[in-house]
Amino acid sequence: MKPDDTPFDRLAVAGQVGSTMYDRDRVARRLGMALAEVRPGFARIAMTVGEDMINGHDICHGGYIFALADTACAYACNSYNVNTLSQAVNIVFMAPARQGDTLCAEASESNHAGRTSTYDIKVFNGADKVIAVAQGQCRSLRGKLVDALPVLREGG
Amino acid sequence: MKPDDTPFDRLAVAGQVGSTMYDRDRVARRLGMALAEVRPGFARIAMTVGEDMINGHDICHGGYIFALADTACAYACNSYNVNTLSQAVNIVFMAPARQGDTLCAEASESNHAGRTSTYDIKVFNGADKVIAVAQGQCRSLRGKLVDALPVLREGG
Amino acid sequence: MKPDDTPFDRLAVAGQVGSTMYDRDRVARRLGMALAEVRPGFARIAMTVGEDMINGHDICHGGYIFALADTACAYACNSYNVNTLSQAVNIVFMAPARQGDTLCAEASESNHAGRTSTYDIKVFNGADKVIAVAQGQCRSLRGKLVDALPVLREGG
Amino acid sequence: MKPDDTPFDRLAVAGQVGSTMYDRDRVARRLGMALAEVRPGFARIAMTVGEDMINGHDICHGGYIFALADTACAYACNSYNVNTLSQAVNIVFMAPARQGDTLCAEASESNHAGRTSTYDIKVFNGADKVIAVAQGQCRSLRGKLVDALPVLREGG
Repeated sequence: MKPDDTPFDRLAVAGQVGSTMYDRDRVARRLGMALAEVRPGFARIAMTVGEDMINGHDICHGGYIFALADTACAYACNSYNVNTLSQAVNIVFMAPARQGDTLCAEASESNHAGRTSTYDIKVFNGADKVIAVAQGQCRSLRGKLVDALPVLREGG
Repeated sequence: MKPDDTPFDRLAVAGQVGSTMYDRDRVARRLGMALAEVRPGFARIAMTVGEDMINGHDICHGGYIFALADTACAYACNSYNVNTLSQAVNIVFMAPARQGDTLCAEASESNHAGRTSTYDIKVFNGADKVIAVAQGQCRSLRGKLVDALPVLREGG
Repeated sequence: MKPDDTPFDRLAVAGQVGSTMYDRDRVARRLGMALAEVRPGFARIAMTVGEDMINGHDICHGGYIFALADTACAYACNSYNVNTLSQAVNIVFMAPARQGDTLCAEASESNHAGRTSTYDIKVFNGADKVIAVAQGQCRSLRGKLVDALPVLREGG
Repeated sequence: MKPDDTPFDRLAVAGQVGSTMYDRDRVARRLGMALAEVRPGFARIAMTVGEDMINGHDICHGGYIFALADTACAYACNSYNVNTLSQAVNIVFMAPARQGDTLCAEASESNHAGRTSTYDIKVFNGADKVIAVAQGQCRSLRGKLVDALPVLREGG
């Protein structure tokens, strides 16, 4: 896809794409995720560890930490308004998260080439301690995420 | 930890460890995961994709597929009755899962050396199509999972 | 690409594709790699750790262990006679390799869907101890590896 | 290990650790790698793609790109003067490298907790195009790299 020729506000487009995704995203809403920031190639998302996310070791189940990291990656890689999917994610768990912790995941594009892009992702707790570090590999598909908005980059 | 010297049924021990983990594992139960099989170094776990696991693209959110894969890995790597944690997981998403699909994750030990072990994990749908392939890297800690049972392998 | 309709010997085709790759593969030859086996979706390759592969800790540099693992993956994923590249590899180092060790890497297809395939890779030493475990993610391109031979699978 | 109490120049220590590693590192020298920069938690290393690094597709073999990335990670994670090993690396290949390209790998610590640290690694060509993106997971052992120098951080 070619980016739109007419001038537009890239930040505003990325923000609107994020809001539209969020409206459709039952999982993010149900898990109490909040969209803190979306810019082209970047997203920050917050989530509080609820009682039902705690495993038998009394720490947050890795699946929910991954879900938060993967969601930040999804909002970041779709921010150019080109449909894009996480194809692979490598996550390293660094420290446990506890019930009541408000976690924050940041995903930032490290590179893109053609339809492939990579993202550095970090999950922090409220004390800015790193809970997990991840690397996402994404692939853009055909089609816009929001038809009424321009795409921000050729090929996604 | 050294394995117990008295004879015992390894399969029964692994199964009891799995049951005990499951009793403590609110996340697995709340997500409707069912323990299909636990043997030393292996676990198979099933989960049906519920409406609240569906994302904005109308497919199962990657976080839940990861949670199932990671849970299978956790039951497999703890099956020796030595406390063991997933330290890192690399997941590759191969095909989408849909609402109502009953997914099945199998984790099988590929190697262990000292306190580190690796697991090959696959997530299948009901038609035996592979939804995701993952590689888990685990690290055993001090301590048994179930005090009353023997450990099945030195170092975990 | 569609597989050929006429009957042929799949094992022989995979073997010839491997031999042709090897003839073009200066790196494999220069590092003393030997093609032990190539079947559709599988390759086994051997290499002896030479003095110039030893790092400052007196063990084999991870780069050469990776090179052997990646080469096994390349021969396995190209065995269907469709041009295919490693796109990503996750490697876990399990034990050191020493000068003079003859290492053997096995790559085995764990899944494929469309143009993406995944491979489980293990590197053993001569005592069958696992030196490294890896997961490869490959992508097939257009074009045959050997024009005169049929392709063994649609899409690679 | 506890860091030294007496004041010292951290940058100078990291640089001397790097030089000492390089003196012992036959592989890096034989592959023509040049140490461009070593700081605490960071290393930049250059290598020119030689004729003997080219594979059958006329591009640089992934093993050499990995070797460069892994070497940058090794110099970065050892820069605190605590013996540290790469335990796992996930590499994503983004673009091919050609014969004669001078590649540059940068490894930068993304997090550390106890004896585990993670590194973001990028390999660039001379036109600053990203050839590969990688994530390294390292583990510090007992012992200094250079006995005569202080350690720069508790636990590595």
